[in-house]
Amino acid sequence: MSYEKLPLEEFYKTIDELKPKFIERLQKAIAIPSVSSDETLRPKVVEMAHFLVDELTTLGFQDIQLKDLGIQPPPVADANLKLPPIVLARFGQDPKKKNVLVYGHYDVQPALKEDGWATEPFTMFHDKENDILFGRGSTDDKGPVMGWLNVVEAHNKLGWELPVNLVCCFEGMEESGSLGLDELVAKEAQQYFKGVDQVTISDNYWLGTTKPVLTYGLRGCNYYQIIVEGPGADLHSGIFGGIIAEPMTDLVKLMSTLVDNKGKILIDGVSDMVAPLTEKEDQLYDAIDFSVEELNAAAGSKTSLHDNKKDILKHRWRFPSLSLHGIEGAFSGAGAKTVIPAKVVGKFSIRTVPNIVSNTLDKLVIDHVTKEFAKLDSVNKFKVELIHDGAYWVSDPFNESFTAASKATQDVWNVVPDFTREGGSIPITLTFEKELGVDVLLLPMGRGDDGAHSINEKLDVPNYINGCKTLGGYLHYYAKA
Amino acid sequence: MSYEKLPLEEFYKTIDELKPKFIERLQKAIAIPSVSSDETLRPKVVEMAHFLVDELTTLGFQDIQLKDLGIQPPPVADANLKLPPIVLARFGQDPKKKNVLVYGHYDVQPALKEDGWATEPFTMFHDKENDILFGRGSTDDKGPVMGWLNVVEAHNKLGWELPVNLVCCFEGMEESGSLGLDELVAKEAQQYFKGVDQVTISDNYWLGTTKPVLTYGLRGCNYYQIIVEGPGADLHSGIFGGIIAEPMTDLVKLMSTLVDNKGKILIDGVSDMVAPLTEKEDQLYDAIDFSVEELNAAAGSKTSLHDNKKDILKHRWRFPSLSLHGIEGAFSGAGAKTVIPAKVVGKFSIRTVPNIVSNTLDKLVIDHVTKEFAKLDSVNKFKVELIHDGAYWVSDPFNESFTAASKATQDVWNVVPDFTREGGSIPITLTFEKELGVDVLLLPMGRGDDGAHSINEKLDVPNYINGCKTLGGYLHYYAKA
Repeated sequence: MSYEKLPLEEFYKTIDELKPKFIERLQKAIAIPSVSSDETLRPKVVEMAHFLVDELTTLGFQDIQLKDLGIQPPPVADANLKLPPIVLARFGQDPKKKNVLVYGHYDVQPALKEDGWATEPFTMFHDKENDILFGRGSTDDKGPVMGWLNVVEAHNKLGWELPVNLVCCFEGMEESGSLGLDELVAKEAQQYFKGVDQVTISDNYWLGTTKPVLTYGLRGCNYYQIIVEGPGADLHSGIFGGIIAEPMTDLVKLMSTLVDNKGKILIDGVSDMVAPLTEKEDQLYDAIDFSVEELNAAAGSKTSLHDNKKDILKHRWRFPSLSLHGIEGAFSGAGAKTVIPAKVVGKFSIRTVPNIVSNTLDKLVIDHVTKEFAKLDSVNKFKVELIHDGAYWVSDPFNESFTAASKATQDVWNVVPDFTREGGSIPITLTFEKELGVDVLLLPMGRGDDGAHSINEKLDVPNYINGCKTLGGYLHYYAKA
Repeated sequence: MSYEKLPLEEFYKTIDELKPKFIERLQKAIAIPSVSSDETLRPKVVEMAHFLVDELTTLGFQDIQLKDLGIQPPPVADANLKLPPIVLARFGQDPKKKNVLVYGHYDVQPALKEDGWATEPFTMFHDKENDILFGRGSTDDKGPVMGWLNVVEAHNKLGWELPVNLVCCFEGMEESGSLGLDELVAKEAQQYFKGVDQVTISDNYWLGTTKPVLTYGLRGCNYYQIIVEGPGADLHSGIFGGIIAEPMTDLVKLMSTLVDNKGKILIDGVSDMVAPLTEKEDQLYDAIDFSVEELNAAAGSKTSLHDNKKDILKHRWRFPSLSLHGIEGAFSGAGAKTVIPAKVVGKFSIRTVPNIVSNTLDKLVIDHVTKEFAKLDSVNKFKVELIHDGAYWVSDPFNESFTAASKATQDVWNVVPDFTREGGSIPITLTFEKELGVDVLLLPMGRGDDGAHSINEKLDVPNYINGCKTLGGYLHYYAKA
């Protein structure tokens, strides 16, 4: 804990004092079922945007804008369905201060009581015994979004200036592919977002349940499909079984050549591209608060491929993985259907890491599958293609922003945070980095067991309140850096 | 054509004379959309049963009964949905005559103009240029059912007695699993069906489009599933890819060990059970009217596994085949979903032939898959099981019934029919053989390109009219045998 502390005790105390108000703010936000994937709830998503505008206005934010993103592209039931707006707002425009853009999203995943929720998902339940707030969006991402507002409210109450100029970007389609966000960020890069020095996103989670983390890396994802096509239409296996080359047989053989069941990628050249593990990096994993047991609990099974923490973390964060997701066009229902599928599409993806070059990976994959198909000497038609890619992201965990966040975390939680990466991707991270040309910090508020996309989503009150302190403290340390 | 002809010219002529009336009868039958799989159309299925009762009554059938089969078991939308009745009727009860049970079904597959029909599926269209009757049920199976009624009408017009006692069994659920039929046949074996000497079914098709066939064999089908189960719920491949044993990886490996892409079953011991091919049987295939081109046309592709007629027919009729149908529980939609499926169920089936013993086959399959799973050294849970089996059927193509049908065919078509088998199963064949303990003859009316379950289902007028002659002629030759 060797860092120069800033005098933030008053601020942290004020956050504590405002706790009931902050919980009420989150409760109001959760009460609006802003489910972006449900077209019938689109008015509620828009209502949530207006709720934010009202809160921002009350708190004294300026230049508040609802950015219209136009009509939602197909597939949609309502061809005239409008995308929810992106909410932009500023607090402060002092040219002597740094400009920090904070991103969050105000839409949520679907939730129905019948899915197995213990309480109504859109009526926040405060479990006072355990001090937990339950409700859809509590941790993903309404808690963190309210967090930034709460930071401003505490400053207002204290009569303090914010140490930086805050630029807010809150979107309403994050749970539905962030439609329209990339274009907006690109368009506003030299307009609303001009001069931004740093982007900070609070939309991921601690690795476990007890130790705060700062996240400096994400794996990418290249998603491929193998198409094998034979007959002109699905055929009956009684009439055609044994006399026609079946696309499924080819496809299953091809899919079986991609990865072994210990997780080893069988495509030549992929592992050669992975950045070598240095001793320094290897040591990084020693401190991380994680265990095989936590993995087992999260997976709901004891089917880990590795028997120790370090190997698990390395394989989640810094090694590639290949998953077979499924097959489109084959029989997928319950029961027994005697079909020979005419055209089958096998789906798989590779999680990418430094220093895998995306285009090179595509070539290796396509060459491998093409070679394996040639071995089959099949009469069926065949194609393998990339259908989606997203780059990996790695930041410098020792830059000004991470250092500031680390100090604030130590102030609040009295512990040095773990510096973590994540196995999944958060595409907006790359969008902001690329379009604004600045560093991005992932500063999570919730715990690893919050159940962001599951039933009984929750945010622990200590995480909410200490999270607000950390967000605010971070702005102060970053301003001084 | 060395057989003693019976004096049936008058009968055949009368059928020709009645052609307009017979076409009208089929038109009325097609106009009733008796789709058994569509609960909302169940009243139409029942209406079709009553249409049959009216026709049978008018023609002088006796002891007409609508057999109530009770409530349709789940899954159904309407828990009180009644199964359509089975229509039973007799024509003649002369103890000196043989008793022939004829089976047909009065329900049809679904059909909508929007599916791509050139004309309204439930409004029969008589293409006079090509002399074809289009409409749902024309060939499957309303044409053949009307055929038996037409045979009686022609006899009535001539003032002839039927040469046999005819027992009709017409069901209304054939296209939906023949629910209730097995029980009814078992129950009536010693009641309504007592004394039946022979069962004749006209509910399959010529192999091709020009040569009549009699069908003496069907393959069976043993349907299996392999279940691989790992995590407690579907997982995100970003977070868990590379650190959890993925059930899909195991399943795809297992499925890849079952059959090669030339159609060879890779399970030890299966081919050893197949009856050896004798020279006599081998020669049987020489005469059959079929070609690789016909297979290509039917499959809509040039992906045949064999380059000559005989190998195709043998592999369709007398060799087993293994088809991979699909995977339940994996991602099966369009697009890119980054899921690690928690539990996947691979479906495959083996078409069985003489002398495969069903239980022995099950053991070979289960042992094979179990052994392959053991090789994987997987931490996932695993199970392989039979979920459905249906036996193969082979009759003696030289028995009295087949011989009679062959003679009638020669009378009418002036050609010796091909003796064929089929690759698929017709479970009712086995039901009647087993429950009544008599031989079954499959005597098809329509052509191989009639499109029984497809759009633009049709029955050529020559097939309908000559089919009626053949059905009637068969009864006469069989009576004399």
